[in-house]
Amino acid sequence: MNYGIIFYLAGWIMLICGCLMAVPLLTAVIYMEKAGFAFLITMVFSFLAGTLIIRKKPRNKVFYIRESYIAVAVSWLLLSLVGCVPFILTGSIPSFINALFETVSGFTTTGASILSAVEGLPRSILIWRSFTHWIGGMGVLVFLLTLIPLTGGFNMGLMKAESPGPSVSRLVPKVRTTAVILYQIYFVLTLTQVALLLLGGLPLYDCLCLSFGTAGTGGFGILNDSFGSYSSYIQIVTTIFMILFGVNFNVYFFIKSFKIKSAFLIEEFRYYLCTILIAVVLITANVRSFFPTLGETIKHAAFQVGSIITTTGFSTADFDQWPSFSKTILVMLMFCGACAGSTGGGIKVSRLAMLVKSVSKEIQIYLHPNIVKKVKMDGKVVPHETMRATNIFLTVYIVIFAASVLIISLDNFDVTTNFTAVAATINNIGPGLSKVGPACNFDLFSTPSKLILIFDMLAGRLEIIPLLMFITPRTWKRF
Amino acid sequence: MNYGIIFYLAGWIMLICGCLMAVPLLTAVIYMEKAGFAFLITMVFSFLAGTLIIRKKPRNKVFYIRESYIAVAVSWLLLSLVGCVPFILTGSIPSFINALFETVSGFTTTGASILSAVEGLPRSILIWRSFTHWIGGMGVLVFLLTLIPLTGGFNMGLMKAESPGPSVSRLVPKVRTTAVILYQIYFVLTLTQVALLLLGGLPLYDCLCLSFGTAGTGGFGILNDSFGSYSSYIQIVTTIFMILFGVNFNVYFFIKSFKIKSAFLIEEFRYYLCTILIAVVLITANVRSFFPTLGETIKHAAFQVGSIITTTGFSTADFDQWPSFSKTILVMLMFCGACAGSTGGGIKVSRLAMLVKSVSKEIQIYLHPNIVKKVKMDGKVVPHETMRATNIFLTVYIVIFAASVLIISLDNFDVTTNFTAVAATINNIGPGLSKVGPACNFDLFSTPSKLILIFDMLAGRLEIIPLLMFITPRTWKRF
Repeated sequence: MNYGIIFYLAGWIMLICGCLMAVPLLTAVIYMEKAGFAFLITMVFSFLAGTLIIRKKPRNKVFYIRESYIAVAVSWLLLSLVGCVPFILTGSIPSFINALFETVSGFTTTGASILSAVEGLPRSILIWRSFTHWIGGMGVLVFLLTLIPLTGGFNMGLMKAESPGPSVSRLVPKVRTTAVILYQIYFVLTLTQVALLLLGGLPLYDCLCLSFGTAGTGGFGILNDSFGSYSSYIQIVTTIFMILFGVNFNVYFFIKSFKIKSAFLIEEFRYYLCTILIAVVLITANVRSFFPTLGETIKHAAFQVGSIITTTGFSTADFDQWPSFSKTILVMLMFCGACAGSTGGGIKVSRLAMLVKSVSKEIQIYLHPNIVKKVKMDGKVVPHETMRATNIFLTVYIVIFAASVLIISLDNFDVTTNFTAVAATINNIGPGLSKVGPACNFDLFSTPSKLILIFDMLAGRLEIIPLLMFITPRTWKRF
Repeated sequence: MNYGIIFYLAGWIMLICGCLMAVPLLTAVIYMEKAGFAFLITMVFSFLAGTLIIRKKPRNKVFYIRESYIAVAVSWLLLSLVGCVPFILTGSIPSFINALFETVSGFTTTGASILSAVEGLPRSILIWRSFTHWIGGMGVLVFLLTLIPLTGGFNMGLMKAESPGPSVSRLVPKVRTTAVILYQIYFVLTLTQVALLLLGGLPLYDCLCLSFGTAGTGGFGILNDSFGSYSSYIQIVTTIFMILFGVNFNVYFFIKSFKIKSAFLIEEFRYYLCTILIAVVLITANVRSFFPTLGETIKHAAFQVGSIITTTGFSTADFDQWPSFSKTILVMLMFCGACAGSTGGGIKVSRLAMLVKSVSKEIQIYLHPNIVKKVKMDGKVVPHETMRATNIFLTVYIVIFAASVLIISLDNFDVTTNFTAVAATINNIGPGLSKVGPACNFDLFSTPSKLILIFDMLAGRLEIIPLLMFITPRTWKRF
């Protein structure tokens, strides 16, 4: 393990984290909030620490795949530890474990909260909370790539380790240019949403917070009832943008290059849209009697489906009160998740598509033992490595899921609460059902359970392997 | 598809089913029950039909892997359809769908019942119910193999298709001899249990019924409270035998050949025993306050762990009232299941072991990309085909599981009920939690839900692939 380079990257992370706090600091200055000092102190501290660390460049440039996984795990932990300081200093969330939970929930774009009411909090704290979603959605190391062109050929490894989905394709030959393009798309989409929300009559501050939460598919709101009291226009715009941010960003790259047909030929994109459509139709039929008009029903169903499949976690209605059938669909969408290469979480549509295709291939082999069949995506044969990694992902996912449910069951809540609490955190959704439903929060869990759920959120966002490497003792051996 | 040979085997199944009904018929004669006529009528009918069918031997002897899978699916469906007739004719279970549910639950060794009270039923009906467990535990086609040495080399295919577990190994070079040895072990173990129960002062009839249910890892009882009111001796003997019937029968073959050391070297066997031990310890600690003495607590914990991991489903206590932690452990054991090559259901210990080993292998490859690692079981490299089949099994299992939960959620029961109802049927356990807990039954579900659960029980017992082939239209094309 090359500790030097990990340490060096950690320094950069501290620096970046300090820079990013300019957003809440500026907010505090504008609204003249005392909370600004908390951000100022944290900024100065992380600037100093970061600058000291990066002064010493690592001599050893050896950077293998395990270094990239560990760099990702370390930087996300560090980011969360620094990011939670303002919550504690301002007294918004006095307990360390709760502040850490909230920050990890922010950066991992989960949106599960331990707060029962958010409306009384300083505006700078609320915008920081939402801003962590926006930062986490795209990832910090990918951001680092665009700033400092690190020497050596490990950039792709870093990007693969941090980006969600079974495979990352370079849009253009250079990794750095790919990262820049992705950020451009992210910026433009976010700004478009801000503009459209402004048109709906919301103040700029609210537009920014909500757009950050939508873009990162996070889910922290700034009102106690999440999205329930916003106008239909705001709800519909947010529905559309939640679904847009769950799309594989390759689609936008194709659209940007005027290859509209290629964009619609991406299989994952089509499956994603079909899944949303089917879910909306089924839920609309099931909850029709809950709302006065059909239009209203479709609006709520579409909002909730978009919110859950993209793992955002906003809510316009307390879906824990909906019938079992609708709840079951939503729980399944929690596991499904959004497209690979989007800001969303979950298992990802492309992984599920590959798994289902491998089953259908297998049945054909049973029928015709001599047939030669390969699993294909977008017309290309899926490499054996990717299939194996997908199977491994599924297995580890299930193991972590089961172990987490078992440990938090020691708190003795009902099975539905435990099951959906883990589902909502490992898939980076936010709300679950029963005692962690949209009208509730995660503060009821004990500290050990919160630690487990923090691990699950990180494991979900970083797609398990980096965290697994992090806790494997053999990783840390010097070589 | 070679229809001729499937039809021919179906004829044999009818004949065998007729013969097997001699057991309840004899019981009816001894206790002078009217129900005997129902068995007599069914026997005569299936004898006639069977004899007519097998008179015409199939000319075409082509028998590929798909023929064995379809033969298995067809014969289990046929067995269930014939087997449920006495329930209807005697009026014990007047509704066809309920009678089918109960019979499938019997043959698949599930033990989920739609009856709220069994104590008033004729003794011949109750022994038939338990006897279906015993028949289903070992499988009917394996039985067929021991009777008629079918020509051609397809016997191994049939045995593979019907036996539980990722791989079937021949104990001796000849498949037929292997089958005979397995039946011998099954007989001897069952008779030993009957003898030990007799020593406990139970009448022979009760001993037979309980032993049939234990041997098949079924779970139908003859008292309304399952095992709650039996003496501690009876409960302890049953605990031991449940665990013994969940062991890979290869272990007994080694013991029979005085290779005691080889028996204990079977990895699956050791994992199975460790899992039981850990679960008993954890549950005992968790439910200590529910029972007066430590011994009593261990007895109940061990009984329930043995009952669930072997997918038997007997109960001495209403574990739905136990704390969340214990319930979660039991739900996990439901999925774990017993050893491959036993009469138990579930995913199987060896499959889980292979999955976990493949993950650990993958992490080592991440750490040392040039390493050559293979998954091994019992010191032998697991063939790539077996690993792939295991991954496919897991995927299909999850898909069927999710689809089933979704469909039965239309009945609008709570999430725990739906989830554990499917878990209890697809893993061939019997009782679940909440509304399908040990003190409840499955009659509350609608007919469509019962059909789904019937499918799940069959899919679980036949390990999915045969049923999946059965419902794939392409299977049925003539070639």
